[in-house]
Amino acid sequence: MAVGYNGLPVLHPVAGVRIGVASAGIKNPGRRDVVLFELAPQCEVAAVFTRNAFCAAPVIVAREHLQQCTPRYLLINTGNANAGTGDAGLVDARRSCEAVAALISCQACEVMPFSTGVIGEPLPVEKIVAALPAASAELGEANWEAAAHGIMTTDTVAKGASRRLELGGTTVTITGISKGSGMIRPDMGTMLAYVATDAALDRAALQTALHEAVNGSFNRITVDGDTSTNDACVLIASGMSGITLTSGSAEMQQFQQALNEVCRELAQLIIRDGEGASKFITIEVVGGRNEDECAGVAYTIAHSPLIKTALFASDPNWGRILAAVGRAGVPELDLRAVTIHLGPVCIVRDGGRAAGYTEEQGQAVMAEDEITIRVDLARGGAETTVWTCDLSYDYVRINAEYRT
Amino acid sequence: MAVGYNGLPVLHPVAGVRIGVASAGIKNPGRRDVVLFELAPQCEVAAVFTRNAFCAAPVIVAREHLQQCTPRYLLINTGNANAGTGDAGLVDARRSCEAVAALISCQACEVMPFSTGVIGEPLPVEKIVAALPAASAELGEANWEAAAHGIMTTDTVAKGASRRLELGGTTVTITGISKGSGMIRPDMGTMLAYVATDAALDRAALQTALHEAVNGSFNRITVDGDTSTNDACVLIASGMSGITLTSGSAEMQQFQQALNEVCRELAQLIIRDGEGASKFITIEVVGGRNEDECAGVAYTIAHSPLIKTALFASDPNWGRILAAVGRAGVPELDLRAVTIHLGPVCIVRDGGRAAGYTEEQGQAVMAEDEITIRVDLARGGAETTVWTCDLSYDYVRINAEYRT
Repeated sequence: MAVGYNGLPVLHPVAGVRIGVASAGIKNPGRRDVVLFELAPQCEVAAVFTRNAFCAAPVIVAREHLQQCTPRYLLINTGNANAGTGDAGLVDARRSCEAVAALISCQACEVMPFSTGVIGEPLPVEKIVAALPAASAELGEANWEAAAHGIMTTDTVAKGASRRLELGGTTVTITGISKGSGMIRPDMGTMLAYVATDAALDRAALQTALHEAVNGSFNRITVDGDTSTNDACVLIASGMSGITLTSGSAEMQQFQQALNEVCRELAQLIIRDGEGASKFITIEVVGGRNEDECAGVAYTIAHSPLIKTALFASDPNWGRILAAVGRAGVPELDLRAVTIHLGPVCIVRDGGRAAGYTEEQGQAVMAEDEITIRVDLARGGAETTVWTCDLSYDYVRINAEYRT
Repeated sequence: MAVGYNGLPVLHPVAGVRIGVASAGIKNPGRRDVVLFELAPQCEVAAVFTRNAFCAAPVIVAREHLQQCTPRYLLINTGNANAGTGDAGLVDARRSCEAVAALISCQACEVMPFSTGVIGEPLPVEKIVAALPAASAELGEANWEAAAHGIMTTDTVAKGASRRLELGGTTVTITGISKGSGMIRPDMGTMLAYVATDAALDRAALQTALHEAVNGSFNRITVDGDTSTNDACVLIASGMSGITLTSGSAEMQQFQQALNEVCRELAQLIIRDGEGASKFITIEVVGGRNEDECAGVAYTIAHSPLIKTALFASDPNWGRILAAVGRAGVPELDLRAVTIHLGPVCIVRDGGRAAGYTEEQGQAVMAEDEITIRVDLARGGAETTVWTCDLSYDYVRINAEYRT
């Protein structure tokens, strides 16, 4: 069960965005595994995708289509990632878009395809095509919750976040869903997140807003350091609230802040539901010369199997954290200036165990489900935060048994 | 039990190198946990140490002493790493060297200290000092096996390798021991390895020979990606065989080859005994533009928890290998040219699953204890090999319970 998960919040509908969910039986018979988004004609769309060089066929096609057209439909399937499938995978991804276009009378390039699931199996495109009429018949604005369930794979809980805010007297909605549990170390988006708003933004402003939100959310989480072949995050602006947001305006700043919150919440939900996770870990690195070196230290800690197993065991084995900071490659690091806190407790100071630190203090912090590790490099003003989880027996079990 | 371990081979004595082992009761009462090397006066010594910025106190002191003097003694303790111990740790490391010097009438700078064990606890220096007379009384050339046992921590088996070769009519011996099982991703040497020869080399030649041997052995293994604070590899040349090796000579080349083999064997033993290891994995990356990009791909595979759990489960989940190659950051990688083999079986070609590949073929390779993953980047002539192990329940258990 996900750490600190309280169920799906109310996911406010976004005017102009309709969703249909249907069962194609891709991996499990009866599973509602196909999700279709229909976007009103005035919708603008921005997206970021994985930087994995072996990116999946649907990522390649979705990127192409976004350059050629303004998307009207998003077609998502779970149970099969259509990755590592070579030319045949591209053909399959295009065929599924063409099927949507034929069914609904649009152009194929107005459809963006997304897939998640096992890598390397041929996409059962006929099953997906057969499910399209049912998905299309179900299209409605109230189906965000069904979609959050529809895009799950090894996720144990559905993930969504929603905000309503008043901008210049107009109520603007931002609603999003995400999925992901393993192979999580997104690099430009995560597999998969869809966020929509009824504010109007042009595509450039939308892309800028999405980049800012993603950099502080999906690009700052890791379960296992493995960047997926299929990561994608899509932001849709329908404009139906009647308000148009322009760069630099006060409303744009308020909107950006709410968007950042929604994305951070969706990203954190992925970590709370990380494969085998029993702890939700926040790693704050402050006092760096630049954000890159802060991120380098944070990810070195977040990816250390030794630290992750100690967190699983609730063992305040701070020597492992110190060793990770030391190998993070920060040039000319002054070890004596570095401090490390576990929650409110200072564990490392003056190059070693902090004076006055007791094992009981560390143990008390480690006994919590949610733990913050804070490293102060004491050499500058940059900082960053990364979220991760522990490494448990269940992580090994889930990934050893994934295909059985 | 270590993968493919056949017991310690005969460890040939090296003339000029005497070893004594004694019990200081640092962590476990009665455990023979202190090892003292005595080097004949004409011995030359080369060493490489961890690049972890938080390097341990004994590493700092050993480095200093090696610059100041020609070492006559190596003092090694297990059970306590004397790392993350600040100024007090430096005082303790120096005191243990001074105690050797006082006992045996040498200078303190002629003693190199080494520690391995728990990070962050004060070194029980009085216990070590009290064990020195016993270690000194036991000094003898036949004690390599006892030393291999003496330096173990979480290791389940003792590690040693030995070679005799004829160089210009003279028999030259190379013998070495190593330890290490977790926190293994050495960067300039591993915690800990000691290799000695009775050939004569000057210090510069010795250091060059050590660097070459380490780069293809200890610097090419990883268990968990965590670089230790205490890594060190020492090479001793006593010269007692009567042969002097000079750079560029045919004898030097033969010697270097044998030294490389000894170091590779010692390094591989650490992987065979990696924490929780049930498989020994060789990752060959060929066809790169330079060795760095080959190593980048190899380590991305070797550190992927998803691949390591699939190896544990004997699951030929080749999509995870493909995803790791894709995220390794190779610029302008031509995916269609890349091929990936699992043992003799081609699993990836033309950007996807190789034509003709069957799950049964992959399964047959994965069922073995020793598995080779070979990636051909098909863009140059560089190559490298990295050795690693799988990620099992036992890895989690060992590291979750390490301090209990």
